[in-house]
Amino acid sequence: MVFSHRVAALKPSAIREILKAPSDPETITLAAGNPSPDAFPAAEMAALAAEIFSTNPSGALQYGISEGYTPLRERTRKRVFEKYGAGRDADDLIITSGGQQVVELTAKTLINEGDTVICETPSFIGSLNALRSYGANLVGVPCNGAGMDADGLERALRDHPEAKLIYTIPTFQNPTGEVMPLSSRIRLLELAAQYGTVVLEDDPYRELRYGGEAIPPIKALDTDGRVIYAGSFSKIIAPGIRLGYALAQKELIAKMTAAKQVSDVHSNLFFQILVERYMAEYDIDAHIGKCRALYKIRRDTMDAALQKYMPDARWIVPEGGLFLWVKLPGGRDGTEFCRSAKEKKVMAVPGSAFLPDENGASDAIRLNFSLPTPKQIEIGVERLGSNL
Amino acid sequence: MVFSHRVAALKPSAIREILKAPSDPETITLAAGNPSPDAFPAAEMAALAAEIFSTNPSGALQYGISEGYTPLRERTRKRVFEKYGAGRDADDLIITSGGQQVVELTAKTLINEGDTVICETPSFIGSLNALRSYGANLVGVPCNGAGMDADGLERALRDHPEAKLIYTIPTFQNPTGEVMPLSSRIRLLELAAQYGTVVLEDDPYRELRYGGEAIPPIKALDTDGRVIYAGSFSKIIAPGIRLGYALAQKELIAKMTAAKQVSDVHSNLFFQILVERYMAEYDIDAHIGKCRALYKIRRDTMDAALQKYMPDARWIVPEGGLFLWVKLPGGRDGTEFCRSAKEKKVMAVPGSAFLPDENGASDAIRLNFSLPTPKQIEIGVERLGSNL
Repeated sequence: MVFSHRVAALKPSAIREILKAPSDPETITLAAGNPSPDAFPAAEMAALAAEIFSTNPSGALQYGISEGYTPLRERTRKRVFEKYGAGRDADDLIITSGGQQVVELTAKTLINEGDTVICETPSFIGSLNALRSYGANLVGVPCNGAGMDADGLERALRDHPEAKLIYTIPTFQNPTGEVMPLSSRIRLLELAAQYGTVVLEDDPYRELRYGGEAIPPIKALDTDGRVIYAGSFSKIIAPGIRLGYALAQKELIAKMTAAKQVSDVHSNLFFQILVERYMAEYDIDAHIGKCRALYKIRRDTMDAALQKYMPDARWIVPEGGLFLWVKLPGGRDGTEFCRSAKEKKVMAVPGSAFLPDENGASDAIRLNFSLPTPKQIEIGVERLGSNL
Repeated sequence: MVFSHRVAALKPSAIREILKAPSDPETITLAAGNPSPDAFPAAEMAALAAEIFSTNPSGALQYGISEGYTPLRERTRKRVFEKYGAGRDADDLIITSGGQQVVELTAKTLINEGDTVICETPSFIGSLNALRSYGANLVGVPCNGAGMDADGLERALRDHPEAKLIYTIPTFQNPTGEVMPLSSRIRLLELAAQYGTVVLEDDPYRELRYGGEAIPPIKALDTDGRVIYAGSFSKIIAPGIRLGYALAQKELIAKMTAAKQVSDVHSNLFFQILVERYMAEYDIDAHIGKCRALYKIRRDTMDAALQKYMPDARWIVPEGGLFLWVKLPGGRDGTEFCRSAKEKKVMAVPGSAFLPDENGASDAIRLNFSLPTPKQIEIGVERLGSNL
């Protein structure tokens, strides 16, 4: 069978392959990107599911519209405006099947084969692969400890003035955990305007902040409808329900809706109704506060364990998100390190998995602190230390 | 904003636009493709949802793998093999976000811009648009009262020997309701082998048969892994949960899995578990039997109403599915007819919406008999008759 150009080179992501790997039951995984199951509001969701089944099962089980369940769209839009300051009258919001689908629909809607997309290096592999699957030419701008380097972005745009899209995760970047300061966000937007480039701001981790002050999303600074904002319910409610959203100018949302229609018609309607009811009947901010408290302990536990067991490695303690990005001592190759770590019953993701350059090497590894318990974090990092 | 070639011409489907239309509350819609809400096993689903929330909420709300929930994959595969005779050792099965996503993933995995896809004319607009969104060149082969005309297919393949894919709905075709006989299925497969063409068999209506004998799917005749089989839970359980599946050769399913990973990561896990439990704990065949009894009455009601109110129109009474395809008397244009029908408070879909040739005209309309009640069918067809 002859595959299309776009998928001929598409390989299953290293992360998901690792998630699937049949593992020794004693293996500790620091390789996931999962929230903690302790962070799911399961009891409230159970009550709401029972309520929906008793009041309106037919409506929740029937076909819906591709834009998403109207009350959820409206409530989400209101929350994003009130809490993040993002969204203009000329914008619209579509419910998607997770934040991942925003990247997919953006690529499908904007990218022709060979178009240049500027992104951070390293960056989230799922997004890079979605862009690759539409034939994008990825140009990586290094993270400089504070997200995408603005001077690097300017150089990339000068080299690729025709670039179609800038893909960025400005807040608690995956995998580095870095946060782009306000000044860089403003400059990124100015550069995008200067070169006529669209910006895709991927922001699934925003509310998982464990210290410091919140910085407005780039979308909140967007006056000319240049920014597509990708949000997600995966990290603040639950990922298995596959719900996220895109906020962008109306004309673009209309095209994304047409693209979504032919992709999966609409997202799971039952859980769209459930999430809307959850936000209406419960205090989602209080719930997120509990998640933050849970993850802050785990982040601090991982930081302390790294200081204890891997003192010669280098890392920045992230102010939020799910990940710690660790540079191995002596420039050791991350892929080789992760391979041998697995034999020591601990899993991490090699930094090379996050590079726009598929043949690149990295001396870093990504560690997740949201899924393992503090005890597992302590043992896992100890095992990583013994692998040095 | 400059859109990609592939979506620049993609318009929201006429059907979904009609579904969304703010309608007079007295308007009767015969324009949908929805199952009846009376056909959802809502009480059983409510019990199973409560069971999942009480036994394994964390597992059902967490990230899953892109292939789908393993027990559901296995149970579905077993059922498809035992009931339809389809599936070989060299095949694999992936759970998708509705049957629509099978068409999307097939197009993404196989179609390069400009590739020829042979399909029935008329055919399901959602699939045609999914194929268009990957730049497919659609070549329509007329339905001849018994599905895709085999001689027409041979001519189309002779004219387009490089055709990449044959897309067919051989059983209760949408919109015509026609069934391709076994001899034509065998010949289609021989022609596909002769020209090295892949076949996508879209089969969401198979089990909604109200008379006559079941015919094996083309996939059951597939000895060399040429056929991709698209199945759906939308019409036998509920569409709002967005679950379907693809059964195809392993190599292709692996590529589709990689493509799905970057599209929506995986389908809603909670309902994957729920559907698996439904098939395990309840009698799905008995449930489908009830759906069949319900729809048979509605089909017969519509046939009788057409005889009464539109005796000069022409239609074939379909042995299954959800639709009646009605040729208007005197070659009247379907689009104009549907527009004026809406003013008479009844909605139908013009035949032109289903043509691979987007500029084509049609003297037919598609009527749905699954969603309206028998009384609504009677009144709706009476209103259609008054519009002649």
